[in-house]
Amino acid sequence: MQDYIINLSQRDIPNAWYNVVADLPGSLPPPRNPANGEPLDPSALSRIFPQKLIEQEMCMDRWVDIPSEVLETYMLWRPSPLVRAKALEEYLGTPARIYFKNEAVSPAGSHKPNTAVAQAYYNKLAGVERLATETGAGQWGSALSFACSKFGLKCKVYMVRVSYDQKPYRRILMKTWGADIVASPSCDTNAGRAILANDPTCSGSLGIAISEAVEDAATHDHTNYSLGSVLNHVLLHQTVIGLETKKQLALADEKLPDVIIGCAGGGSNLAGLIFPFVPDKRKNEKMRLLGVEPSACPSLTRGPYRYDFGDTACTTPLLAMHTLGHNFMPSPIHAGGLRYHGMAPLVSYLRHIGMLEAKAYQQKEVFDAAVMFARTQGIVPAPETAHAIKAVIDEALRCKQTGKEEVILFNFSGHGHFDMGSYEKYFEGNLTDYDLPQEVLERALAQLPDMPAPAK
Amino acid sequence: MQDYIINLSQRDIPNAWYNVVADLPGSLPPPRNPANGEPLDPSALSRIFPQKLIEQEMCMDRWVDIPSEVLETYMLWRPSPLVRAKALEEYLGTPARIYFKNEAVSPAGSHKPNTAVAQAYYNKLAGVERLATETGAGQWGSALSFACSKFGLKCKVYMVRVSYDQKPYRRILMKTWGADIVASPSCDTNAGRAILANDPTCSGSLGIAISEAVEDAATHDHTNYSLGSVLNHVLLHQTVIGLETKKQLALADEKLPDVIIGCAGGGSNLAGLIFPFVPDKRKNEKMRLLGVEPSACPSLTRGPYRYDFGDTACTTPLLAMHTLGHNFMPSPIHAGGLRYHGMAPLVSYLRHIGMLEAKAYQQKEVFDAAVMFARTQGIVPAPETAHAIKAVIDEALRCKQTGKEEVILFNFSGHGHFDMGSYEKYFEGNLTDYDLPQEVLERALAQLPDMPAPAK
Repeated sequence: MQDYIINLSQRDIPNAWYNVVADLPGSLPPPRNPANGEPLDPSALSRIFPQKLIEQEMCMDRWVDIPSEVLETYMLWRPSPLVRAKALEEYLGTPARIYFKNEAVSPAGSHKPNTAVAQAYYNKLAGVERLATETGAGQWGSALSFACSKFGLKCKVYMVRVSYDQKPYRRILMKTWGADIVASPSCDTNAGRAILANDPTCSGSLGIAISEAVEDAATHDHTNYSLGSVLNHVLLHQTVIGLETKKQLALADEKLPDVIIGCAGGGSNLAGLIFPFVPDKRKNEKMRLLGVEPSACPSLTRGPYRYDFGDTACTTPLLAMHTLGHNFMPSPIHAGGLRYHGMAPLVSYLRHIGMLEAKAYQQKEVFDAAVMFARTQGIVPAPETAHAIKAVIDEALRCKQTGKEEVILFNFSGHGHFDMGSYEKYFEGNLTDYDLPQEVLERALAQLPDMPAPAK
Repeated sequence: MQDYIINLSQRDIPNAWYNVVADLPGSLPPPRNPANGEPLDPSALSRIFPQKLIEQEMCMDRWVDIPSEVLETYMLWRPSPLVRAKALEEYLGTPARIYFKNEAVSPAGSHKPNTAVAQAYYNKLAGVERLATETGAGQWGSALSFACSKFGLKCKVYMVRVSYDQKPYRRILMKTWGADIVASPSCDTNAGRAILANDPTCSGSLGIAISEAVEDAATHDHTNYSLGSVLNHVLLHQTVIGLETKKQLALADEKLPDVIIGCAGGGSNLAGLIFPFVPDKRKNEKMRLLGVEPSACPSLTRGPYRYDFGDTACTTPLLAMHTLGHNFMPSPIHAGGLRYHGMAPLVSYLRHIGMLEAKAYQQKEVFDAAVMFARTQGIVPAPETAHAIKAVIDEALRCKQTGKEEVILFNFSGHGHFDMGSYEKYFEGNLTDYDLPQEVLERALAQLPDMPAPAK
């Protein structure tokens, strides 16, 4: 009997993160200072980030050693299993072989602790006592709460209002790890108060919550900011996912995947899986990398590649990325972790140079896919992860039509145990699909800063 | 670096369940017919169970082959990891080495699918189309819903009212796997209607829910009953837990445990872990087996060993067990899975002959232990599992005092992702400890059937 679950020994946890910057075909456009348009002086980040993370943000080396304290904490759950989705294959009747990297086995239930642990460690090392952050679906807030509990740091989480209301149990999970949580926009920051003054019932967005957490860090002693996605150092930490996966595919005597799929909000789980495969993709044009996003927040499929702010209050440096505009307010879809106006610069760059495909889905078809997965493989996916699953099913059905025995790999970025309220709405028939009319998108894009788009 | 997570290959999933009956020092008292007190004619069970499960209930063979269809489904998540709780050890400063078998990795989040999958399979094989069952905390109902979705059976779950109200997301989880759920006592059965007539706000109990599910099975075509604990065949299916653990301890070059711990409601997760160690216990008197229960429902520590009904409506055969009386109504503690008046006959027998120790805890100290575990090992335990953890911590602290390097093994029977409402009450200071006054217990015991207690 062949193993469907491919486990590694803990000695096989990578001892270095992989930095894709070293293997890009061109140069990543640098972050820029919004005041003068010049490439950002890294020291500008030192008010909210520790030096080590700033170095990683700018790093050009291919490999970055993982500190032993981080490895020791990874060992609470890593390596995560690579799983052959045999039951789903059989249900679909596809000749494709489907594999998923199960990042849901982490204490917080997603891939997010891979970077949360590293960030908590480097901040602790720098003498920081408290971290402030934002969270959308709650996966990132949970991860940082867990990581802070491991390194003895205080943790303040600004949770996007719509998720705060939809997912009360996420809040209590964070509290179980000792964090302090508030709904965003909140009255705890100037950014939050200004938005509430205009719109007291604002359902919030990741962009707003980022503004609040950055302000909190900049205005509190011994407090830094921590971001769960988008930035280079965050994506770097996530590459343990793809590095382990390559070892596991080899262990299963499997060829390199024909298509690699991840959902994409800020881009970190997609990046974590695909970046270690970028050198393979450069050797083999036919290998496909695919990012999946909600139709309601389609930065990769409908957003231009432009310099834009990472947050709503325009406090971050300008980043070259696929963006819907920093004031874009996504509809309240249940995949809260995908409600971000922009996309990680590294992921955006891969898309910009044509190495990354992208696809957008409506949430009802995404929940159809989630329930099919739960009833075949057993595990209940997070709504974010279900976007990837929808694309996987479409690819597997394409293989069924063509008869091709392709290998489809995807990142099972998180479980849906804290998303049952969304499933309830789905079963009650109360889930809404949201269109994004072109004129709404163009209004949001009209507010983009006047900064030349980087050339290809 | 030593591995803290000990994984087996899927080829190491046991291909036979272990039947402890073959290795008991005496004979297990048989179930009896309440009408005449005679040992039960197995055919009396055929109205609600398939023949294969009745055979397993009465089986004397040491090993029972696991069908390949069951193994194939086990492979969705098994073997479960054995984990060295190094972070908890370090936090406690104990010389003990603590291991836990992580059964929370199953799709339903607990050990329960081990038997749910087997039961669904044998019922499907017998041409049954629908299963009825009860659930306390919701773990068993989730497991059977999942198993029925895998084998194409309909599933009706009678969920104890107090859990139904406390854990709305458990219901939706079951619905995700396609089950039909109702709060018990319900209006769907005579048993439920009779109880509601007396007490319209009755918070329910496992005993009542069992009565309803048994009646449902007996009065519907092509419908069988399925029980999540207590019976011999259920405990048999759970022995994959201990069998895998023995292989994993050997792989870690670890000695046999000094003490093996599990929480005990009906007794199935405790049994699954400890039964395969019973032959070792018989060779080595010093090895300790420990069942942990809530002070509010202390069948092992305060209930006599007597013949009693398995349910409240007195519809089951009489079982020899530690019991608080079939009419005992436990206080509404948050460990809903431990709110059962009796205890599995096999577990009760081990207790009766002195092979099993037992300990009871109040729920506040149990949640203290749960939060300590979450903040060290990361994983958030179910309230039931937290009972075992409280005992583990006490044993580890005893080792700290004595300086003994003992090996402590426990069953991490389930995660707490659907118990966040209980954690919220704990953090708010709204968790109540419940005493069980001796006179209340004696009133419940006065209703025990007049059946001689089996001799030792």
